[in-house]
Amino acid sequence: MARPQPTLAPSCFAIGETMVAPPAPGELVARVAYASVDPYLRLYMTEARSGANLIPLGGVIPGFAVAQVISSRNRGFTDGDWVVGRLGWQEIATSDGEGLRPFDPSLGPLSTALGVLGMPGLTAWAAIRRIARPACGDTLYISSAAGSVGSLAGQLARLAGCRVIGSTGNSDKLPWLEEIGIEAFDYKVHGVASGIAELAPDGVDIVFDNVGGSHLEFALESLRRGGLVIACGGISQYDSDRTTTGPRNLHLLFTRSLTVRGFSNADFTDDYPACQQEISALIRSGEVQYRETIFEGLEAAPAAMIKLLVGETTGKVVLHVGGDG
Amino acid sequence: MARPQPTLAPSCFAIGETMVAPPAPGELVARVAYASVDPYLRLYMTEARSGANLIPLGGVIPGFAVAQVISSRNRGFTDGDWVVGRLGWQEIATSDGEGLRPFDPSLGPLSTALGVLGMPGLTAWAAIRRIARPACGDTLYISSAAGSVGSLAGQLARLAGCRVIGSTGNSDKLPWLEEIGIEAFDYKVHGVASGIAELAPDGVDIVFDNVGGSHLEFALESLRRGGLVIACGGISQYDSDRTTTGPRNLHLLFTRSLTVRGFSNADFTDDYPACQQEISALIRSGEVQYRETIFEGLEAAPAAMIKLLVGETTGKVVLHVGGDG
Repeated sequence: MARPQPTLAPSCFAIGETMVAPPAPGELVARVAYASVDPYLRLYMTEARSGANLIPLGGVIPGFAVAQVISSRNRGFTDGDWVVGRLGWQEIATSDGEGLRPFDPSLGPLSTALGVLGMPGLTAWAAIRRIARPACGDTLYISSAAGSVGSLAGQLARLAGCRVIGSTGNSDKLPWLEEIGIEAFDYKVHGVASGIAELAPDGVDIVFDNVGGSHLEFALESLRRGGLVIACGGISQYDSDRTTTGPRNLHLLFTRSLTVRGFSNADFTDDYPACQQEISALIRSGEVQYRETIFEGLEAAPAAMIKLLVGETTGKVVLHVGGDG
Repeated sequence: MARPQPTLAPSCFAIGETMVAPPAPGELVARVAYASVDPYLRLYMTEARSGANLIPLGGVIPGFAVAQVISSRNRGFTDGDWVVGRLGWQEIATSDGEGLRPFDPSLGPLSTALGVLGMPGLTAWAAIRRIARPACGDTLYISSAAGSVGSLAGQLARLAGCRVIGSTGNSDKLPWLEEIGIEAFDYKVHGVASGIAELAPDGVDIVFDNVGGSHLEFALESLRRGGLVIACGGISQYDSDRTTTGPRNLHLLFTRSLTVRGFSNADFTDDYPACQQEISALIRSGEVQYRETIFEGLEAAPAAMIKLLVGETTGKVVLHVGGDG
């Protein structure tokens, strides 16, 4: 077990067993069905970027999980309830209920509590509905378009009347992107700048960026005057040390009157019920599609995280830990 | 005469004489009193960053100037009128009137038409009044605080009830900054991050950035959750080639829900009359002060531009070309 040096390797992970104590007053114990594998967790693994969230060596990876309460001494939850929260990559989790949300399985399959009906869903929904608020006819560019957040954001923007273009680093993902109405290119084949320029020669109005780094640099070049970047993530920068460079063309911010709006889904947790209802209905009606890459068992966690960071997964990445219904 | 390789040198400039033709129909000829020396002009001197504004080798530097009309065949202007526009670093300028604004000398000295009552004034005014709109009690950090834009923006923010802190690269400028109500430090002595942290240990709400580069990187660190950067310029990046790095900590945009708002004064030219009236009144009442660094004659232009870029000037930098009243 070690910190990434600087890239993440299987040797950074270990599986251990520990006794679970019965819940103390106010606590609950839950059995995890699915654990969420998210790019941001990589930030918590390196001192320089984690802030207060640094995972101690030997600590449980504090990912979100959907779990069923098996023993509750917390008034807010009853045995049998399905809950979502930062329960960690583990089979059995103990919680004091802080930050835990109930999940209604009638809204969708359990795994979606971590994807389209969970944090990535809220992120995409808030980015489009609350932050970008695109006008009908706007052209929106999405990096990492086949990811859990990008693919949903793209579909929500398309439903709002936007033209949506996007990129992926894997040509295998192109047919699905076309199917869901995102005109996409493989940036490893075409390059980011020329890929965007070919699809949108007059520039784009909004960039929804999950990749950061040089990708953001090229995306900035593509923006029309007064354009907006929604800075939602920087997956290209996570699995590295801090010497990685930022975009070198920030003078475009003032020469073209651009805005870069960063946001965190934590600012929008009150919107979960509205967001879940809307997305669940859009999935039922077939207007929105989603993909999941499911890895089996906690043993697969290192591979899941590494494949996610290098772009070998599609849609939401989850670990199936066990214990479904 | 040559392009900067990559820093600007006196050998990049030359002075030449040319015959001035009488104005054609629709044109006017004006005698320049002051020409404006601005950081952004450096961008126009290098192919990669100039876009459509590249100055051809041997071309007149297209700076703003305040000038008196000496021969008009344009209906909008009469002989004797004072005008401001992109008339260039030259003694006599010909214009078709496009983009030319009248200047009322009763508002302030002629040189202020290029400073507090000109483009830098509009920039500072729009940044504070239209973009930042700070709340009373906000803490605002200004880089390049003793510059023409920074010093005015700081005073407008202070009048709006903000606490204003700022940095300069020259300790000689500190007494004046204190006098105008900006708590400032010399970043070459204290460093940017620790200078801000000492004055505002709880962080700042708004960063008004004119410097860019590593300075912006440190300023981002200082922002509270939900904070705003007004990206107004990047003087640290202008006199270099494109290999300069951008801020490496843009993940703060989404982890702290920050916004970076770039803007160009060109979006606010309709506000000139309101802005000039207000600033002129604030100067008359003593509520706002300004400084100018005046260089004598076109021969001084290379020195003026280079000293501005390395931070050896205070307030607005102008060339006194001649022809005042």
